[in-house]
Amino acid sequence: MLSLVLPKGSLEKATLELFDAADLAVRRGSDRDYRAGIDDPRVDRVMFLRPQEIPRYVEEGLFDLGITGRDWITETAADVTSVCELEYSKATSNPVRIILAVPADHPAQTGAELPDGVRVSTEYPELTRRFFADAGVKAIIVPSYGATEAKVPDIVDAIVDLTETGSAIRAAGLRIIDTMLVSYTELIASPAAYADPDKAHAMRQIHTLLEGVLEARGKVLVKLNVQAAELDSVIDLLPSMKAPTVNELYAGQGYAVETVVPKSAINVLIPDLKDHGATDIIELPISKIVH
Amino acid sequence: MLSLVLPKGSLEKATLELFDAADLAVRRGSDRDYRAGIDDPRVDRVMFLRPQEIPRYVEEGLFDLGITGRDWITETAADVTSVCELEYSKATSNPVRIILAVPADHPAQTGAELPDGVRVSTEYPELTRRFFADAGVKAIIVPSYGATEAKVPDIVDAIVDLTETGSAIRAAGLRIIDTMLVSYTELIASPAAYADPDKAHAMRQIHTLLEGVLEARGKVLVKLNVQAAELDSVIDLLPSMKAPTVNELYAGQGYAVETVVPKSAINVLIPDLKDHGATDIIELPISKIVH
Amino acid sequence: MLSLVLPKGSLEKATLELFDAADLAVRRGSDRDYRAGIDDPRVDRVMFLRPQEIPRYVEEGLFDLGITGRDWITETAADVTSVCELEYSKATSNPVRIILAVPADHPAQTGAELPDGVRVSTEYPELTRRFFADAGVKAIIVPSYGATEAKVPDIVDAIVDLTETGSAIRAAGLRIIDTMLVSYTELIASPAAYADPDKAHAMRQIHTLLEGVLEARGKVLVKLNVQAAELDSVIDLLPSMKAPTVNELYAGQGYAVETVVPKSAINVLIPDLKDHGATDIIELPISKIVH
Amino acid sequence: MLSLVLPKGSLEKATLELFDAADLAVRRGSDRDYRAGIDDPRVDRVMFLRPQEIPRYVEEGLFDLGITGRDWITETAADVTSVCELEYSKATSNPVRIILAVPADHPAQTGAELPDGVRVSTEYPELTRRFFADAGVKAIIVPSYGATEAKVPDIVDAIVDLTETGSAIRAAGLRIIDTMLVSYTELIASPAAYADPDKAHAMRQIHTLLEGVLEARGKVLVKLNVQAAELDSVIDLLPSMKAPTVNELYAGQGYAVETVVPKSAINVLIPDLKDHGATDIIELPISKIVH
Amino acid sequence: MLSLVLPKGSLEKATLELFDAADLAVRRGSDRDYRAGIDDPRVDRVMFLRPQEIPRYVEEGLFDLGITGRDWITETAADVTSVCELEYSKATSNPVRIILAVPADHPAQTGAELPDGVRVSTEYPELTRRFFADAGVKAIIVPSYGATEAKVPDIVDAIVDLTETGSAIRAAGLRIIDTMLVSYTELIASPAAYADPDKAHAMRQIHTLLEGVLEARGKVLVKLNVQAAELDSVIDLLPSMKAPTVNELYAGQGYAVETVVPKSAINVLIPDLKDHGATDIIELPISKIVH
Amino acid sequence: MLSLVLPKGSLEKATLELFDAADLAVRRGSDRDYRAGIDDPRVDRVMFLRPQEIPRYVEEGLFDLGITGRDWITETAADVTSVCELEYSKATSNPVRIILAVPADHPAQTGAELPDGVRVSTEYPELTRRFFADAGVKAIIVPSYGATEAKVPDIVDAIVDLTETGSAIRAAGLRIIDTMLVSYTELIASPAAYADPDKAHAMRQIHTLLEGVLEARGKVLVKLNVQAAELDSVIDLLPSMKAPTVNELYAGQGYAVETVVPKSAINVLIPDLKDHGATDIIELPISKIVH
Repeated sequence: MLSLVLPKGSLEKATLELFDAADLAVRRGSDRDYRAGIDDPRVDRVMFLRPQEIPRYVEEGLFDLGITGRDWITETAADVTSVCELEYSKATSNPVRIILAVPADHPAQTGAELPDGVRVSTEYPELTRRFFADAGVKAIIVPSYGATEAKVPDIVDAIVDLTETGSAIRAAGLRIIDTMLVSYTELIASPAAYADPDKAHAMRQIHTLLEGVLEARGKVLVKLNVQAAELDSVIDLLPSMKAPTVNELYAGQGYAVETVVPKSAINVLIPDLKDHGATDIIELPISKIVH
Repeated sequence: MLSLVLPKGSLEKATLELFDAADLAVRRGSDRDYRAGIDDPRVDRVMFLRPQEIPRYVEEGLFDLGITGRDWITETAADVTSVCELEYSKATSNPVRIILAVPADHPAQTGAELPDGVRVSTEYPELTRRFFADAGVKAIIVPSYGATEAKVPDIVDAIVDLTETGSAIRAAGLRIIDTMLVSYTELIASPAAYADPDKAHAMRQIHTLLEGVLEARGKVLVKLNVQAAELDSVIDLLPSMKAPTVNELYAGQGYAVETVVPKSAINVLIPDLKDHGATDIIELPISKIVH
Repeated sequence: MLSLVLPKGSLEKATLELFDAADLAVRRGSDRDYRAGIDDPRVDRVMFLRPQEIPRYVEEGLFDLGITGRDWITETAADVTSVCELEYSKATSNPVRIILAVPADHPAQTGAELPDGVRVSTEYPELTRRFFADAGVKAIIVPSYGATEAKVPDIVDAIVDLTETGSAIRAAGLRIIDTMLVSYTELIASPAAYADPDKAHAMRQIHTLLEGVLEARGKVLVKLNVQAAELDSVIDLLPSMKAPTVNELYAGQGYAVETVVPKSAINVLIPDLKDHGATDIIELPISKIVH
Repeated sequence: MLSLVLPKGSLEKATLELFDAADLAVRRGSDRDYRAGIDDPRVDRVMFLRPQEIPRYVEEGLFDLGITGRDWITETAADVTSVCELEYSKATSNPVRIILAVPADHPAQTGAELPDGVRVSTEYPELTRRFFADAGVKAIIVPSYGATEAKVPDIVDAIVDLTETGSAIRAAGLRIIDTMLVSYTELIASPAAYADPDKAHAMRQIHTLLEGVLEARGKVLVKLNVQAAELDSVIDLLPSMKAPTVNELYAGQGYAVETVVPKSAINVLIPDLKDHGATDIIELPISKIVH
Repeated sequence: MLSLVLPKGSLEKATLELFDAADLAVRRGSDRDYRAGIDDPRVDRVMFLRPQEIPRYVEEGLFDLGITGRDWITETAADVTSVCELEYSKATSNPVRIILAVPADHPAQTGAELPDGVRVSTEYPELTRRFFADAGVKAIIVPSYGATEAKVPDIVDAIVDLTETGSAIRAAGLRIIDTMLVSYTELIASPAAYADPDKAHAMRQIHTLLEGVLEARGKVLVKLNVQAAELDSVIDLLPSMKAPTVNELYAGQGYAVETVVPKSAINVLIPDLKDHGATDIIELPISKIVH
Repeated sequence: MLSLVLPKGSLEKATLELFDAADLAVRRGSDRDYRAGIDDPRVDRVMFLRPQEIPRYVEEGLFDLGITGRDWITETAADVTSVCELEYSKATSNPVRIILAVPADHPAQTGAELPDGVRVSTEYPELTRRFFADAGVKAIIVPSYGATEAKVPDIVDAIVDLTETGSAIRAAGLRIIDTMLVSYTELIASPAAYADPDKAHAMRQIHTLLEGVLEARGKVLVKLNVQAAELDSVIDLLPSMKAPTVNELYAGQGYAVETVVPKSAINVLIPDLKDHGATDIIELPISKIVH
């Protein structure tokens, strides 16, 4: 039986939707509750806490399993076992980045070119300290509790901040000169718990369910019919992720082909399939994919 | 052609979603309209009224068919024909219960142990009266128009109230000592209308559509491929609701298996299937199931 | 590479949902941005503008492709190429109509019966001018910037206005006496761009994707099993849009039948199929259909 | 020390605003709490309950003082002491009315003209029963739990319902043929508590504060300067509620006049005052007036 | 008895608040009604219409009195009588401006420097036509139905648009090179109605009430006490709008001074008054001022 | 000219309302802007930052003047000059407290009784460290980033947290055993700026305006008339904050008395005044009071 800690705040909604879709729905009395449950024989306790604090608590074994961002695992340098990356963030399936930015018209092209005494505001003081130590720059690190990008030039000369698209950075008149970390959401385990084979097996099963949902999000099931003569040319068009499932139809109706296709390819693929003789092409949504 | 009365209030949203999913979408000018229509040859008139009033109106034949809670059918003791239970309530697919509750530290363990003269607040005075008559307790029944659980101890000694999870009852410092009724939403017919074979047939068809949606809500379609050698062991894992559909694939690719599985089993089943050799497992949402 | 102009305002939400479902998701910094992009090799520029202005801009070649209503194409008499009708409007898949209405108790039965000097308020002055010129009535056209139906009788004697269901017209105490135009949303091209074979091909592919989504909206995939003896009678019940896909099941389990059915037929079809021996009927949602 | 019961529901917001303005602010943990307090030496307990139930609880002495509508006092025929009418309702300072309504085209001009057997839907069955008994009509009373006006003609022939402006009644196609009660919000006391001189004195003081706020809502303070010559004619224009306060100004500047005026007179009075020589007219808002 | 037309849309909320504060509260069934009333003997009919249409309807005498912006009066060149400017707009008490703007890096410094053939988008085609005719520039005017500032450079080279602060213009990368009109909200009368002495008198009284509210918005009443010795120096500090009201206090307590002061002066005045010996300075809000 | 830093977050709304009421309205492009301005000759730059960071920035002279909580001044031990306490917090005019809490059934009565090794979660690690050092307890301090009260008992044994009413603490099943700080909002100055006489004078004037608003919030102006015979007894009832202003009325009407009274006294005072012969008592709201 596993104890689980989930991130409160910007990742909360997306995490709840992921668990729900994975048939591991989190039950809470209200949105503001910190304690919750999951109707699953493998999970006996769920708590919601700030993502900053999660790596440390999982390291100490206060929880067996947790979800947080790679940024906070690195910042805290917590000794945790990474079960897997989960490719989602607050709003998209893209990772976030921790970057170093300076005013757009600043001459520096990398962090190493910044002068000693440079003032840097950040919510990641440890990560920033290590970066500038490696770069050989004596930086003054000013801890930030939010709105980091607004502090140039009144408070500091540069910032180290999280960004998904870089647009807030640019809107603040700043320019990115270094990427210190590319950060995904991550499923992490307490090393002690992971050493227990039963717990590790349960963790991998949970991983399978979560991954199955994320995998399905970018895919659809395409079904089509095709005559024998065009079967090969239609199959050649299909993405080579996996062999398609082919069935011969009753009474010489030809063949039914079924395959999983990335959504990003659909806009090009469907018109092509039609051009090559596929008929009755239909696209169905998928809830989970497990290879 | 049937006339239909639907419940206004807490069941309204869930009922509209059910009819919509059953391809019996209710058309209303606005959310606040009491009269509506359905584009279906079997239904000629739809009205929204309070669930308390519905059993009586259906009994009197003012409507052929209605949806309300079992609680109000029992309270009113209306003579109506139950077509079927519809397993949904305001928020979940669970039933609600009408319970008797007293302060948490009260000595009574059942309603029969309450003293004569006990004051009981309730929105169900008839049902409560019958309960205490059967229990041989002379209770003073105080009709309630809401917030029943808040009336202990200022106004009354005990309450008879509706609850889904019991959490509001506990939060008010009360303890449940008897369950008087387990109540589902129900599709009821006027006995006179149900005696008309054409109307009864139309009612059963509507029942089939509504039931098909409710049945599908807790199920998914699982498709997987498997080699001949593992076919039997994979099939053995599948829930025995119904034989799965098995197709031999073209050109010796093995077998395609397709089956309907309860969502509640998925979190355990999918990891198991994978362990037994199933590949390309995908899960698809279902809109309706009719056995 | 195509430039595309999409309608801001009442059609905006439905248009964005359509493009999203067609895997042509429009990326915008915020809801209020006028410029956007689509991750698709065929589209290099997207702008949102008022539907009134779109026909003229597409005619002038400022954009290759645009979406607007047939009403504005007719009002502006812009010389554009119609790629296809897209059967959706603000809220439904029905067309809108431009109608002529008068007070409910007015004696006229058609526009031609209105007297010379009739004052008519409208947002479509050109279309209205042509209509009355054809009808041989000397009307005074009063341009309207909204709330047209409220202007009778204080400001004008009659109105020419857009309506979907006619209910706002009736609620204002008016009666429709002529329908001047039935208007669908339309995909239009600049004639110059359409004359370029590469651009025309890209436009038709986009048309295929959009149409595939709209087509799927009213359809579902029905799967069922049936024994050999009932196969023909079950197949006879299926709508004749297209031959159903039939598979013989493994080990004499009978046949699996799969077909696409209009949602509007489901409420009658499913009970019928069951009556004729179909079992394990399930209905699945479809994302796209391309014939 | 008084216990106080306030109405939950439609009168709740207006009641809380009144107490707040009277410097008797009600403190509650949250909007949904049923128990509350007031920082005032005269009040030791506050509870919120449905207005229907309040007359009975005050009659029984479960609370010393309560606020509810006259409609429910009459319906329940509870034996309570009326401390004062409070001229506010849900939205305005007007009373509400309980009326009898029939379809607009019904021939009856009064309730007494309705035929025996008439079906009447109402949330006030007792009041309705007494009305028809007095009128000598044998009516069938159908209890209503809301949306009463929508029940004609499907369920009943006439309704007895609460209305403020009559507009919902008219919108439902009905016509009012009798007014059975004009109902204000009322401050009521338990007869037992009111017989205690200390409690009665505290109740009258609370009455003074509440009344002081309601009185001030429709009034403003008008200040103006005027020369000796015009003093009398200006004073003659002022409403005769009370003699205005007149001060002679320093150094022969004339006179300063100050008076309280109903808001409803301001739109006519201010232009008049100016015409008669008043200068520097200013209008100030008033929080309370106690005569 | 006057008929009145008020502006629907961006000025609507501010206009309703103004009439409410002027004790000319507008009664409407709902926010979306176009017809309304005012409980005032001088007004018998109120209608809400788009501000663009109002000047023409007032000119034609369809309404006696209207409120709209100076921009639309000028655009339509309607022959109406201006009763007064009302210094409020959508959000502030500042006027709006109609300006000509070009891309920030465009060489032109005034409209007259723009080349022939310049394309200009605007919601004010007439006003723009006259402007360029006066400037001797042959401009191509492209009518706009919104989002005008977004049309540079895709659709046009320059725009004529309404702005309050210029920030939307700047945010679109444009630069203002000419101000064509400074526009206040305006109270306008039909010339025919204004020629009627009774109607003109009623209009001036309504003007007095509306003006009284707007005047009071920027002012407060300051009251203070001062000893005889400091009376003159304190009075000298007060703004010279009007002589302050001075009262000698009872029993040699000194003097009470009362005056109306602009809010914008308060932040400097109050500290100054205190420095010069004023005591018990209090500031009161004012609802109306009529000089 | 002063630079000013205001608190982003929970104090933001209340701070903006205070400055607005003090006629020092803060102008911002949007709610999310970090830079702002005030139309006042004494202020040239305004920035919004997190309250945690403000003491340090004011100490360093990055801003002349700032508003933050006493809690963060103490936590950071920043060397700043306190201009004055401003008695408001997020929701009320009460101070907040930093308290130490343990599970309700824990035996400790004060922090000093906690055992060595006690784990304490807090957003105030420095303040907590000093407290336990003084108490002679070796505590393990676990930094918290929110939801501190939810961390007992899963993560820690005790918490140090901010509370206004203690209700969230109690709701989490905890009991307060020590109050470490009573914290008001505070106006703080950079010592360097405060040493400049001009800046210090400007700061005191701003202090006067802010204080004038806060002072007025709990007060009202009471005006009443009284006959000579009752003048003294009425005046004796008035709170002795300040001598009331008394005016003899014109023509022997008696006396007009005017005084400022705390709102909290009104519920008792007004009924008393009436009992002692005061007439025409009216209460007016006050915007500012400066003694």
